[in-house]
Amino acid sequence: MANFKLIKDLIQPAKTKIVLLVMDGVGGLPRASDDKTELEAAHTPNLDQMAREGCLGQHYPVAMGITSGSGPGHLGLFGYDPVYYEIGRGVLEAVGIGMPMRPTDVFARGNFCTLDAEGLISDRRAGRIPTEECIKRVNKIKSANIRVADDIEILLEPVQDYRFVVGLRGSGLNAALRETDPQRTGVRPLSVVAELPAADRSAELFNTWIAKATEVITDDAPANGLTLRGFASDPALPKYEDVYGLKAGAIAIYPMYRGVANLVGMEVVEHHAYTVAEEFDAAAVVWKDYDFLFIHVKYTDSRGEDGNFEAKKAVIEEVDAALPRLLALKPDVIVVTGDHSTPSQLKAHSWHPVPLLMWAPGMVRPDRSIEFGERSCARGGLGTFQAADIMPLALAHAGRLAKYGA
Amino acid sequence: MANFKLIKDLIQPAKTKIVLLVMDGVGGLPRASDDKTELEAAHTPNLDQMAREGCLGQHYPVAMGITSGSGPGHLGLFGYDPVYYEIGRGVLEAVGIGMPMRPTDVFARGNFCTLDAEGLISDRRAGRIPTEECIKRVNKIKSANIRVADDIEILLEPVQDYRFVVGLRGSGLNAALRETDPQRTGVRPLSVVAELPAADRSAELFNTWIAKATEVITDDAPANGLTLRGFASDPALPKYEDVYGLKAGAIAIYPMYRGVANLVGMEVVEHHAYTVAEEFDAAAVVWKDYDFLFIHVKYTDSRGEDGNFEAKKAVIEEVDAALPRLLALKPDVIVVTGDHSTPSQLKAHSWHPVPLLMWAPGMVRPDRSIEFGERSCARGGLGTFQAADIMPLALAHAGRLAKYGA
Repeated sequence: MANFKLIKDLIQPAKTKIVLLVMDGVGGLPRASDDKTELEAAHTPNLDQMAREGCLGQHYPVAMGITSGSGPGHLGLFGYDPVYYEIGRGVLEAVGIGMPMRPTDVFARGNFCTLDAEGLISDRRAGRIPTEECIKRVNKIKSANIRVADDIEILLEPVQDYRFVVGLRGSGLNAALRETDPQRTGVRPLSVVAELPAADRSAELFNTWIAKATEVITDDAPANGLTLRGFASDPALPKYEDVYGLKAGAIAIYPMYRGVANLVGMEVVEHHAYTVAEEFDAAAVVWKDYDFLFIHVKYTDSRGEDGNFEAKKAVIEEVDAALPRLLALKPDVIVVTGDHSTPSQLKAHSWHPVPLLMWAPGMVRPDRSIEFGERSCARGGLGTFQAADIMPLALAHAGRLAKYGA
Repeated sequence: MANFKLIKDLIQPAKTKIVLLVMDGVGGLPRASDDKTELEAAHTPNLDQMAREGCLGQHYPVAMGITSGSGPGHLGLFGYDPVYYEIGRGVLEAVGIGMPMRPTDVFARGNFCTLDAEGLISDRRAGRIPTEECIKRVNKIKSANIRVADDIEILLEPVQDYRFVVGLRGSGLNAALRETDPQRTGVRPLSVVAELPAADRSAELFNTWIAKATEVITDDAPANGLTLRGFASDPALPKYEDVYGLKAGAIAIYPMYRGVANLVGMEVVEHHAYTVAEEFDAAAVVWKDYDFLFIHVKYTDSRGEDGNFEAKKAVIEEVDAALPRLLALKPDVIVVTGDHSTPSQLKAHSWHPVPLLMWAPGMVRPDRSIEFGERSCARGGLGTFQAADIMPLALAHAGRLAKYGA
């Protein structure tokens, strides 16, 4: 991970502005027809010009060979070792839907399931009910005004399909709790069990809630039961302002990315953007307010997971076409990269290194690259490195790190 | 080193098969006549085809600038930090000749030496006696049925030239012992000295054995004395099945490589192979029994140490010519590399990075390399990395690692 102590000692004030432009899952694999990846096949005159002016490289979000999820991938990009700083599933789901969080809250991801007449699980995902059904069940449970203790508040929100988030708010709570999903059918949901004595009361409170909530939906098959997984609290990550001396803002369309950015101390920029161009326009609105802007483009990953090479390529072309709006703001440093690879051939995240473009006029050492693509990045002037090295590199190119030693 | 805990958490079952093909000491230096290394000068149509289909890189078995021995080099390839996991010389020699080992045994490497009339060392290597003379002395000592204590068994085997292995078997033994070779002539062999109180008895037992064994060969100049070095016990390495979830087999002609593989939990495949083609045929015989096969080719290193460029090149060509037998088994992943470099110009192991080829159809990101050689590997899509990253990378390409985080 970035050496926060060293960085903090070297941080010096500057008026420069840094943009971290993340095309989620941008890395790909070449297709047979022309041996080009989505990024290489895309018509990207602006990115290619930036490659000529800048310097390329490739990074591993977690480590060589490790396929990164979006949470760890972004932590890596932000300079945090994703193995050391683990964000529990419950917290990731909660930030993912923008639930406000306090350090002492304990969250869990919930799954609706189907229970048979004997109370045994017959479907762990409740027949994959649509989100509207999930919302109905959650609202019904909310309406029941379940209480588990006088000093404990219950937080409950639907997520997607059969998934929801539940949290307890109060003092003395502890997330060292074992999940209740037995991972198979034909058995009852497990009870919440404390892994530490300090979590005994939390286990009891969650068990009470589960019993009462299950009672509320008992006639609502196929979603007439529930299990809880990934109990977690706010991981209390060091904050951007503190470790990098940056006032940072996050522009993202999907809540999860806003949430992860918020966990590292970025302010979530309010906007009504639905396209990349609109995200850049949102950046223009708040341009004077921040030293650092994280701008997240989701659909490169979505189209990669769909297995749609052409559509992923089109998203990259959309980013390229919108770039003049971002360049018009005259940022000092732009880092263009992804949080992991999502080759459309694999329809999934992958372990392949992620291409990166460092653009910083007058500050970067251009490497004679002529296009932004996986193979040009593999031969780029920055080499192959850990994602945690990106932030110090961006700070350096922004003139924000003093010399180390005499 | 590979993050064993992380890897273990992510391991998922698969039916894929991985081959680690090690050409010992394959890395070289270019000769003046055509600026080509042994690997680059060799006619290798199959390896070059695999390079076109795969992805190249180069690795450091231990660390930049460190010339690796064969033991540490292989530990590095297997994913174990060779500095953290030290295999003592005594154990390396013992596994090298296939001696069965118990965790509580203490082994030492022995050297026959020449003692003069006053008992001073006049030749530390006993005039480099041939192996047959070594075997004769060892058998003579064995015949003397030396006892050092009622509860201690003595293990003794010849190795090569003036070298042998001696071990003590029993309870309460400890390998924290100082060597008896004074590293110069004109002085007596040193006594074994304990470095810890817990090793006091072991020192006494070895000293007793040395006195009695020296007595047996006292008239057998030039090998009429002996010294002991590298006292060591089984390093108790984490095992392949446990850390990688792989049932692994090792095919090697030289006992030492079988021994090191066995120390990490690989099964030693019995075979009668003397050529690379026969080693691949041996792989075919046991193909269904393993998830992972380590196949070791010794003679690249031997010819490098001989200083014979052409002969080393010929061994590489032998490997290439035999490759269709391996490819016919349809492995999912083949990693071709070495455990260190052995440039024939230096007639010795060297610190130069080791070329690596990752071949995994449909899973690898080809890097547009057109041949397998040191300079193409230095510019390869995998970059330059530690050998310990190879195993996670191979597991990823074999679909054996789940995504980390959501």
